[in-house]
Formats: sequence, structure tokens, C-alpha cells
Amino acid sequence: MSNIITVSREFGSGGRELGKRLAGELGYAYYDREIVTALAKETGMDEGFLDQQLEASTVQIRFPIHFAQSFSELTTVPDTTVHILSLQSKLIKELASKGDCVFVGRAADALLEEKKPFKLFVYADQASKLARCRSRATDEENFTDKEMIRQMKRIDKARAEYHDIISSRAWGERTAYHLCVNTTGTEIKAVIPALADYYRAWLNVQG
Amino acid sequence: MSNIITVSREFGSGGRELGKRLAGELGYAYYDREIVTALAKETGMDEGFLDQQLEASTVQIRFPIHFAQSFSELTTVPDTTVHILSLQSKLIKELASKGDCVFVGRAADALLEEKKPFKLFVYADQASKLARCRSRATDEENFTDKEMIRQMKRIDKARAEYHDIISSRAWGERTAYHLCVNTTGTEIKAVIPALADYYRAWLNVQG
Repeated sequence: MSNIITVSREFGSGGRELGKRLAGELGYAYYDREIVTALAKETGMDEGFLDQQLEASTVQIRFPIHFAQSFSELTTVPDTTVHILSLQSKLIKELASKGDCVFVGRAADALLEEKKPFKLFVYADQASKLARCRSRATDEENFTDKEMIRQMKRIDKARAEYHDIISSRAWGERTAYHLCVNTTGTEIKAVIPALADYYRAWLNVQG
Repeated sequence: MSNIITVSREFGSGGRELGKRLAGELGYAYYDREIVTALAKETGMDEGFLDQQLEASTVQIRFPIHFAQSFSELTTVPDTTVHILSLQSKLIKELASKGDCVFVGRAADALLEEKKPFKLFVYADQASKLARCRSRATDEENFTDKEMIRQMKRIDKARAEYHDIISSRAWGERTAYHLCVNTTGTEIKAVIPALADYYRAWLNVQG
């Protein structure tokens, strides 16, 4: 069976960078954008449209999550979104069977629960996340801090909602993860070898 | 200035073992029981009595923590307890100035906030904590699982309450820590070198 690491993360915390570097350090496959590319290939849909459906449009999905047991009950969600989310879930499970890998986001921790992945949660304080978002923003993005913070919260809320449809454990609740990493005041690159070693030590005692 | 690590932990999660081993790995002083011994020396009080005051009796302290700003306002708390807690705080601050060290519990993370310690939170799932408590229980301790779970929760609640008198951040809330370690299904001894490396990488980028 392949070894899997899932990285859940607050928007702007550097979880993607951490996941990618960790995969590199361990020689594991890394899946994030690759999933969207594969979905585009499979569906013939545009990557931009898929992104919007998978990331942005979950923000717009508002439904009584505590009453919804499965996608099929989410009658208020557009059919296309449900279809794409369903295809994504299938794809994530297929990729997870192919070999050792790291998944960032996409509720992979919940989707792959039965494969017993090593689950990381990456977070940071607001100032730190804001600075990271600022450093990556293009010149055209003239958001105020207030707007950026609102956007960050909106995305995290959407991630939590999507995650909590699938999982019985709340997104970001420490008990759902093996290790929760605060990237505030830490250089991600510098802690990767230690995180890889921590993971190896953990893996070593698994049955 | 000395380098400080604080270990906050759920009862039964192995936080004490982790803190002690981490101190050993780094060659740092380790403070836990040592604090009680020093307090006993200073006050002439019995260690057992002090333990009761510091650990057990915080459980019995019930007061409106959200309105209490300092110990002096806690008029419902017995004078002796306040006196001992105050001495303990003073002692922790003194020890922290003496050299590199690891503190386990005693709200040291909050008490030493201005010294910018590296803050760990150690937790585990209930079954794992129960197993750890069972393995350490003496023959005389014939608790049922239900009783042990109640006791574990009682102690964690007391720790949280004591911590939250001093800190503006809630005990166990991930944002208050640099790293949150789930010891469920992990051998503590095996992850110590990785944790020490993580800490060293973090320390390296501090001002």
C-alpha cells in the first residue's frame, strides 16, 4: 500500500509550499494543480472554470451542512459543481493508489481516511498570512488589508464547509491531525528536513 | 538571553515524557517536579501538600474567570493557593533566566510570554491517553475507564482554567503554539530528534 501525506491548511499559511517541499524531500509525488489538470483532461472543461467550481464556488455554496449527509442531498448545489467534486474525489482516490504521495487540500485527509494518511495541518497568524498573500499578489490586485482578510476568511470557511461534508471531524480541529504546524516566524524551507524525519519516525511505528 | 521551550499538554498524552526527552536531546535544563521541590524548600511546606494546592486544588477552584483580571481579584480562592501560585510564578521566571530550559505545564508558556519561548502543545486521542494512564497506574488505583476519563477531563479543565487566568489565548487553541503534536500511534522517543531539529530550525530564524 502506498504511503500518503495530506496537508490541510489555512489560506496564506504556506501549506502548499510546505507540502510541495515535503514531497520533494521524501521523493513522493505531489498532487495539487495536477488534479485540476487531470480533471480538465477528463471532462474537456477549462482549468479556469474548474478552479472556479472547486475553490471559488464552494464559497458560494450555502447549505445546511449539518443536515446534509452526502452530496446527493445537497439539492441547492448546482449539478455541475457536485459532478466535478465527485470526479475530483474519484481521481484523488485513484492517485492515492498509484504510489507514495502528498496531497494538499481538497479534503484529501477525509477522502483518504481509510488509507490512514499522515495528516498535517498548517496554520499561521493573520499578520503572517497577510504578508504572504501580499508577497504573491500581482500588481493588478489592489486589495486593502481588510479586503484581503475578508477573502482569506471566506476561503477558509469554504474549505471548512467542504471538508465537513465529508468528514465527521471539523476542519482545523487538532485531534483530526497528527501534527499542526504554525508557520508564523518560521522559514518553511528550513523545517522540511525535521518534518520529513518526524513523518519517517511516525511511519516506522505504523502497522 | 536563555532559550526556552514550554510544553503544554493534555493529561495522559505523554507531554511530560516528551518534554523531558526533548530537554535531554538538546542539553537543556528540565523543570517540572523540580519546581515543587524548590517551592517546598522555600516555604517549608510539604511537597505533597504543594502538589495538592498546585494541581488538584486548581480543580476545586471555581470562579468567574472571565471577570477575574488577576489573582488579587480572586477573592473566592483560598489565600494559601494564591500565595503558592504566586511563588510558583516567581520561581518559574527566575529559573527561565538561568539558562536554556524546558518547562512542562504550570502555564509557563503564558508566564514567560515576553521571553518568546518555543511553545509546544502535546495531545492525543482518548483511547491513547487512557492506555497511557492505565500503564502508569499503581495496583491500588482501581479506577474504571469511566472514572479515569472523568479524572482526565477534570485535570485538563483545571489546567485550562489556570492557564486562561494568565493568558489572553485559550489553552489548547492552536494559534497559541508553534507546534501541536498528536502522540496517538507515535513513539515519543522516536520523534524526539525530529522535534529537536524542528526547534533548532525555528530558533535559527528568530531575531
